[in-house]
Amino acid sequence: MIELWHCADTRSFRALWALEEMGLPYRLHLLPFPPRIHRPDYLEINPLGTVPLLVDGDVRMTESAAITQYLATRHGPTPLAVAADEPDYGLWLDWLHRSEATLTFPQTIVLRYSRFEPEERRLAQAASDYTQWFLSRLRHLTRALANREWLCAGRFTMADLCVGFALLSACDLNLEHKFSPEIAAYWHRLSTRPSFRAAKAAQTGMY
Amino acid sequence: MIELWHCADTRSFRALWALEEMGLPYRLHLLPFPPRIHRPDYLEINPLGTVPLLVDGDVRMTESAAITQYLATRHGPTPLAVAADEPDYGLWLDWLHRSEATLTFPQTIVLRYSRFEPEERRLAQAASDYTQWFLSRLRHLTRALANREWLCAGRFTMADLCVGFALLSACDLNLEHKFSPEIAAYWHRLSTRPSFRAAKAAQTGMY
Repeated sequence: MIELWHCADTRSFRALWALEEMGLPYRLHLLPFPPRIHRPDYLEINPLGTVPLLVDGDVRMTESAAITQYLATRHGPTPLAVAADEPDYGLWLDWLHRSEATLTFPQTIVLRYSRFEPEERRLAQAASDYTQWFLSRLRHLTRALANREWLCAGRFTMADLCVGFALLSACDLNLEHKFSPEIAAYWHRLSTRPSFRAAKAAQTGMY
Repeated sequence: MIELWHCADTRSFRALWALEEMGLPYRLHLLPFPPRIHRPDYLEINPLGTVPLLVDGDVRMTESAAITQYLATRHGPTPLAVAADEPDYGLWLDWLHRSEATLTFPQTIVLRYSRFEPEERRLAQAASDYTQWFLSRLRHLTRALANREWLCAGRFTMADLCVGFALLSACDLNLEHKFSPEIAAYWHRLSTRPSFRAAKAAQTGMY
C-alpha cells in the first residue's frame, strides 16, 4: 500500500489530495511541523527531513508536484493526467512546475522571514519583496483563467490540484483578499471538491 | 520550427541544451538579461518577461524543467525520457522538479540580494541563509551520486541535464569549490558533453 508522510497544510497536501482524488488506498503518517525538530527520528526515514515522503513499493519521492504526475500516470489511466498526444500536454507540464517553483517557493520565503525565524532574524524587506513577486505571478494566473474553468485540457487535472495548494498556502499567509474575482471563483471550485474536503478531514488525526 | 527566447546561462539554458542534446532544429532569439529592462518589447511576446519562452506550433511554455520533459516526450522516443513503466519513472520526475524548485530557486535569492539589487537593498543574511540551504541540498545530491554515474535509469536523462543547469548556476555564484568529489566528477561529465558545448557556443551570438 502507498505510504505518505505528511504535515497538515504543507506541500504534502498535494500528495494527500491527489490520493483522495484518485481514490487510491494509502496509509497516512501525520507529523507535527517541522518534523526535523519535533520528530528527529523521521530523519532516519527521510534524511532531508522534508514532507512529503511518498513510498510506493520501491519508489520513494519527495517532490509534491512530481508525486501528483507520478500517481496520475503510473496509477492511471485517469483524466487527471494530460497525455503526451493531447494538445495541452505542454501547458499541463508548465503548470505542474509553475505551481511549485513559481507560486509556492516565494511564499516559503515570506513565511520564513515573517513568521518562522526568531524576531532578530526576521527580514521585512525580503517578506515584502517575495509577497509582491507572488502577487505578480497571481496576475498571470488571473489571465490564464479569464476564459476557462480549469487550467488546461478543458477539465480538472493534477495541474489545478497543484496550483490549488499554492492558493491554500496563500490563504494561510492571509493573502486571500488579494485574489482577483477569477482566482476567488477558481479557489471556490477547488476547495469545495469532495476530494479536497476528504484530504482536509484525513489530516485532522492524532500524531 | 521550434523557437526559443533565451538569455545566456539563465534557466533557458536547460531548453537550449535539451534542443542540442536531441538534435532538434530550432530558431534561437538571444536577449540581454534581464530582458524586461533591456528589451521591453519582449513583454509583448511574453508578458511575464521571463526566459525561457519556447514556442512549438500552438504550444507555449515558460518553465525550463517542464520544457525538457515536453521535448523528450513529445519529440521522442528518446532515452532522455524515462517512461512511466520504467522502475525509475518516479525518481526521474522527482529530480526534474527538484532541479528547479529545490536546487535553482534558492540560488536566485542569493543572486538577487548579493548582486542584482542596488547596494542599499542588499540582504547579506538572506544571501547567506539560502547559500547554506542550497549547500545542504547538494549533500543530498552527493549521496544520490555515491554509487551511480547518472541520477536515474542507468543513463543520462533530462533529469541530469536539469540538475546540470543548477550546477552551472552554482559555478556562476562561485560555489564550485564547495562541490564534493562526487559532484565535481558529475559536473565534469555533464559539462564535457558535446551538447553542452554546442549550447554554450550557440548562445555567444549577437543580440
